[in-house]
Amino acid sequence: MAKRFSAEKYVAGILAGDRVMLSRAITLVESKLHSDHELAQEVISQVLPHAGNSVRIGITGVPGVGKSTFIEAFGIYLIQQQQKKLAVLAIDPTSQRSGGSILGDKTRMDTLATNPQAFIRPSPAGKSLGGVTRSTRESIILCEAAGFDTIFVETVGVGQSETAVHAMVDFFLLLMLAGAGDELQGIKRGIMEMADAIAITKADGSNKDKAKVARAEYQNALHLYPRAASGWLPHVSTCSALQQQTGLNTIWQTISEYLQLTRSNGYFEQKRRDQNLQWMYEAIRQGLEEHFYNHQQVKAQLPDVAAQVKEGKKSAFAAASELLGLV
Amino acid sequence: MAKRFSAEKYVAGILAGDRVMLSRAITLVESKLHSDHELAQEVISQVLPHAGNSVRIGITGVPGVGKSTFIEAFGIYLIQQQQKKLAVLAIDPTSQRSGGSILGDKTRMDTLATNPQAFIRPSPAGKSLGGVTRSTRESIILCEAAGFDTIFVETVGVGQSETAVHAMVDFFLLLMLAGAGDELQGIKRGIMEMADAIAITKADGSNKDKAKVARAEYQNALHLYPRAASGWLPHVSTCSALQQQTGLNTIWQTISEYLQLTRSNGYFEQKRRDQNLQWMYEAIRQGLEEHFYNHQQVKAQLPDVAAQVKEGKKSAFAAASELLGLV
Repeated sequence: MAKRFSAEKYVAGILAGDRVMLSRAITLVESKLHSDHELAQEVISQVLPHAGNSVRIGITGVPGVGKSTFIEAFGIYLIQQQQKKLAVLAIDPTSQRSGGSILGDKTRMDTLATNPQAFIRPSPAGKSLGGVTRSTRESIILCEAAGFDTIFVETVGVGQSETAVHAMVDFFLLLMLAGAGDELQGIKRGIMEMADAIAITKADGSNKDKAKVARAEYQNALHLYPRAASGWLPHVSTCSALQQQTGLNTIWQTISEYLQLTRSNGYFEQKRRDQNLQWMYEAIRQGLEEHFYNHQQVKAQLPDVAAQVKEGKKSAFAAASELLGLV
Repeated sequence: MAKRFSAEKYVAGILAGDRVMLSRAITLVESKLHSDHELAQEVISQVLPHAGNSVRIGITGVPGVGKSTFIEAFGIYLIQQQQKKLAVLAIDPTSQRSGGSILGDKTRMDTLATNPQAFIRPSPAGKSLGGVTRSTRESIILCEAAGFDTIFVETVGVGQSETAVHAMVDFFLLLMLAGAGDELQGIKRGIMEMADAIAITKADGSNKDKAKVARAEYQNALHLYPRAASGWLPHVSTCSALQQQTGLNTIWQTISEYLQLTRSNGYFEQKRRDQNLQWMYEAIRQGLEEHFYNHQQVKAQLPDVAAQVKEGKKSAFAAASELLGLV
């Protein structure tokens, strides 16, 4: 079992901006050990009054879009040009590998990883998306309490994790590649709808014209959607690892405009409040199911009952009633 | 309180194809009264061995696409040309009106409603999508036991109910209108991905060419998606209320081809088994939450706790733990 400290020690370290202690606190909230949960909740509760003062940005895109390169360049830009302190949290539901996930692999963000104003944390991708997103949300709070004012939550744009990430960030940035048709193949369609901005990467050299065309196409497509509740019309821009400054500055301007709009019309605050509540209901659901499916009798009888349901010998609802009656 | 019979009486009536008794049994499974649940489960359990022998077809499309006209025409076609017995179940999560929902309004399907081979049942649209979809699923079983071999589950293509319907049918048909851009405005993007076939309605007169163009466009778009697990490539066709026979025959051929493919490669059976299981887990979730949120202490304390979470004074997970501890 890993080393544990008192809640006070974690809290003091985090509030002092101690990166090692921040890292250990994240390990604590990621722990699946029941014995760690109470301590983790205690730490979260104590740092909560010091959290919230950040801009939370979700960044997604299919593998190959150049996410690491973009995050490294955009991160350095924010630190150097905008005097930000940046934490990068990565979720990768597709990888079951323990240790470093493919997403947050530090070796792919060398410059950012060694910058004292940046903190990079890959999620240990587990079986349960619920578990990963839960700890990611708590990690955001820990990073904010440690003084990070800009949080990236990075994910692969291929599935369900985007909805979870969308529910924990203020701004959702989608990275896309130019090129006929491939936009539909990689990105699940619902994801485009969640984007507050789309950035078309690798807009350089012979790719530049294609990127411009793609930009116009996406901008048109986004116009067809009904206006979002925030009053915001998603922006589309292009960027390149070779011509970073122009593209990155445009993206930051877009984010700033979004923040200005949504902070002045109250949407920013409202969304965060709604997200808090949404996570409470989600946590209740998880708690109820965890308790139920770990019950001895349910564990013993579930396989048989499930088999009967699968075979159509028992109705889904009769089976549910039967199992619910055991607890 | 409405009139209730013994389980045996419901079951005998349903198995004899008594439409009045079928109707009353659906009212029973739709009932929100706790006292009705046990009786409903008893009826479902008894008819279950007689259910399952049907093709379950989900039909969706935005208001204005001509759903009622299509269902009436396609229903009559199936009854007259294919010797089918058809039950139409309608879900309308957007309408809170009691009594007839806008979807299943019998007056909009005059010919079908009076045909002895057809049974039309609008869902009383309620607040809980979960409740409506639950009773719809049980209604499918009742209709099958009463001898209906073709079930339409109708819904409006504007939101979350489609996913629920998709999870209870064998084949998902999406109705769309031709016309620049409007396909993106009305239909949620994720819904197109679920379609096994798209039918472009009102393909007649001056609209005919537009419909042909739209058909080609959709067919191309569908080609870009990864092939579905069924091995099926969704079809796109056109149809018209004025030239019913051609279009309707094509759609039925498409459905028949789909059934032939998925029955021979095992997907049809596998999907139904998976759906059964999925509904069991869904019913367990609903049962757990119903029990939790109806608990006296939870009811009493939830408003306060939720307010604290909204204001950011308490973390979502601490609040969840607190409330879960009450039960």
